[in-house]
Amino acid sequence: MSTVRILTGITTTGTPHLGNYVGAIRPAIAASRETGIEAYLFLADFHALIKNQNPDQVAQSSREIAAAWLALGLDPDQAFFYRQSDIPEITELSWVLSCSAAKGLMNRAHAYKAAVQANEESGEDPDFGVTMGLFSYPILMAADILIFNAHQVPVGRDQIQHVEMARDIAQRFNHHYGDTFTLPEAVVDDQVAVLQGLDGRKMSKSYGNTIPLFGTPKQLQKSINKIKTNLLEPGEPKDADGSTVFQVWCAFTEEAERESMRQAFADGLAWGEAKKLVFERINDELAPARQRYEKLIAQPGEVEAILTEGAERLRLQAGAMLAKVRHAVGLRPYH
Amino acid sequence: MSTVRILTGITTTGTPHLGNYVGAIRPAIAASRETGIEAYLFLADFHALIKNQNPDQVAQSSREIAAAWLALGLDPDQAFFYRQSDIPEITELSWVLSCSAAKGLMNRAHAYKAAVQANEESGEDPDFGVTMGLFSYPILMAADILIFNAHQVPVGRDQIQHVEMARDIAQRFNHHYGDTFTLPEAVVDDQVAVLQGLDGRKMSKSYGNTIPLFGTPKQLQKSINKIKTNLLEPGEPKDADGSTVFQVWCAFTEEAERESMRQAFADGLAWGEAKKLVFERINDELAPARQRYEKLIAQPGEVEAILTEGAERLRLQAGAMLAKVRHAVGLRPYH
Repeated sequence: MSTVRILTGITTTGTPHLGNYVGAIRPAIAASRETGIEAYLFLADFHALIKNQNPDQVAQSSREIAAAWLALGLDPDQAFFYRQSDIPEITELSWVLSCSAAKGLMNRAHAYKAAVQANEESGEDPDFGVTMGLFSYPILMAADILIFNAHQVPVGRDQIQHVEMARDIAQRFNHHYGDTFTLPEAVVDDQVAVLQGLDGRKMSKSYGNTIPLFGTPKQLQKSINKIKTNLLEPGEPKDADGSTVFQVWCAFTEEAERESMRQAFADGLAWGEAKKLVFERINDELAPARQRYEKLIAQPGEVEAILTEGAERLRLQAGAMLAKVRHAVGLRPYH
Repeated sequence: MSTVRILTGITTTGTPHLGNYVGAIRPAIAASRETGIEAYLFLADFHALIKNQNPDQVAQSSREIAAAWLALGLDPDQAFFYRQSDIPEITELSWVLSCSAAKGLMNRAHAYKAAVQANEESGEDPDFGVTMGLFSYPILMAADILIFNAHQVPVGRDQIQHVEMARDIAQRFNHHYGDTFTLPEAVVDDQVAVLQGLDGRKMSKSYGNTIPLFGTPKQLQKSINKIKTNLLEPGEPKDADGSTVFQVWCAFTEEAERESMRQAFADGLAWGEAKKLVFERINDELAPARQRYEKLIAQPGEVEAILTEGAERLRLQAGAMLAKVRHAVGLRPYH
């Protein structure tokens, strides 16, 4: 059986929260440990520049996110873990791809169209505030994927388009210059838990309803206590399924414990009690990672060394792919 | 007096003709020998990919143009002579710049607007056949200029816009991230001779009216014999100023010889005789270069070594600039 290369980009903006952990980090780390899978996990800091023009935040977010993944169990010997900006071959490939990628394709990108629509609604010029980074990032994303010949890219439904564009760009290149790139596929895992936030909507930074991943136990407890519930009193039977508290519990437990919690709710478990159980469970799972995280943040050299080593291993591979691409288009073989 | 850095890009499409020599190559080589000037001359092969998707032609044109410049007297010890695609820092800078460059700026680029207009006139979608390379090349050009902090970019009137865009992009970056780039200036030299082609229009590959630069003497002679003249017979007085033959003569002679040729025409010099003189003069000027050119083409390793050395010297400089830029935007200092 041949190896499946799975590539996941991690946007380095903000600090990871519990929803990122359940929905993205935990499953990606689990997948990276499976046999037959070669996992490429990268900090998309070139992409971060589009959204964040504050250099301190860009740098800090990159450090925090790298430390978080490592603290949560990502094993750099079992996955390629690297920072996009350490692989300059990606931006070079990006230029070469742009010479055969259609501008019309970019015109149809969701993020760009949303920006144009917002501008039109507020009576601005359609391209007001749109940078070339925002407009052309599907090309950079294609380069991210194609440079390592990734087979699969796990994405949410809203991001399928990016992978399809990468596929389209690869196809066009292959058609003109001969077979060069593997055609990547988007993989949408509808099984992956989408964690609800404090207000019951999807947990998301933009809703301001997140539970922090690596706060102190006290902060975690305080945050969990804020989860919205109905007004049923202790002793009154509660329906677990409509409850965010129960949904969060399920994200951290196996079937048997879920059933007994469901029963406890039906038997009238108080919200306060339930939240305490949820806190303890999450805190148990996160405590060792939190310790590792704090250590890693305090010793940035260690994270740095891991990322640098990851990039060094991959630059050979990226360079070999780029050499192939350069030859295909008529540029001199690389240095 | 401080040094002025002058940067000139040479698009690597096609084979250089006599018009390129008179209008661009000869003056650029002369400028590179002046004191107080640091000349950056580069083969713009990343740009060539936009127009030419034939790998053999891309590779061959790059070799021929490099050999031509060297044969015609460019001294790689007096100028930085390099190939754009040997400096990957340029594409990386290009991405970083794109994150602060406005898309609206690209919408106004002449080359893009011309493509849209042609599409609209033929009833196509405005972006039909437009690649992202064509659309975003002003950003790559800005990176070409800014990575070496060029002061001046000699251009034809039709290309002033590119340098203004680079200046605009640099200004925007400096404004947001602090002083990083020198603001480049377009320098239009209206003194530079525009050589007329066989039909009297500007000599240009697209008009099919060129005189080859490094053909055999026989080809050169044949080509010069095709220069359009009026029907005045030998012995009839001719007006030098309206004549392409005279214009070409002037591009290869000093004042005194121009005057005596003018007089000879007034005295009834035959077109055939005049063309013979023009041929001899051009052939005298080009013969040694032609020999060097043929030798360089036969030994591509020599050209290659010169370009590789040029790039090696410059990559240190490009890397230092990139390190500054990366620091400014919050990316980790370069490797």
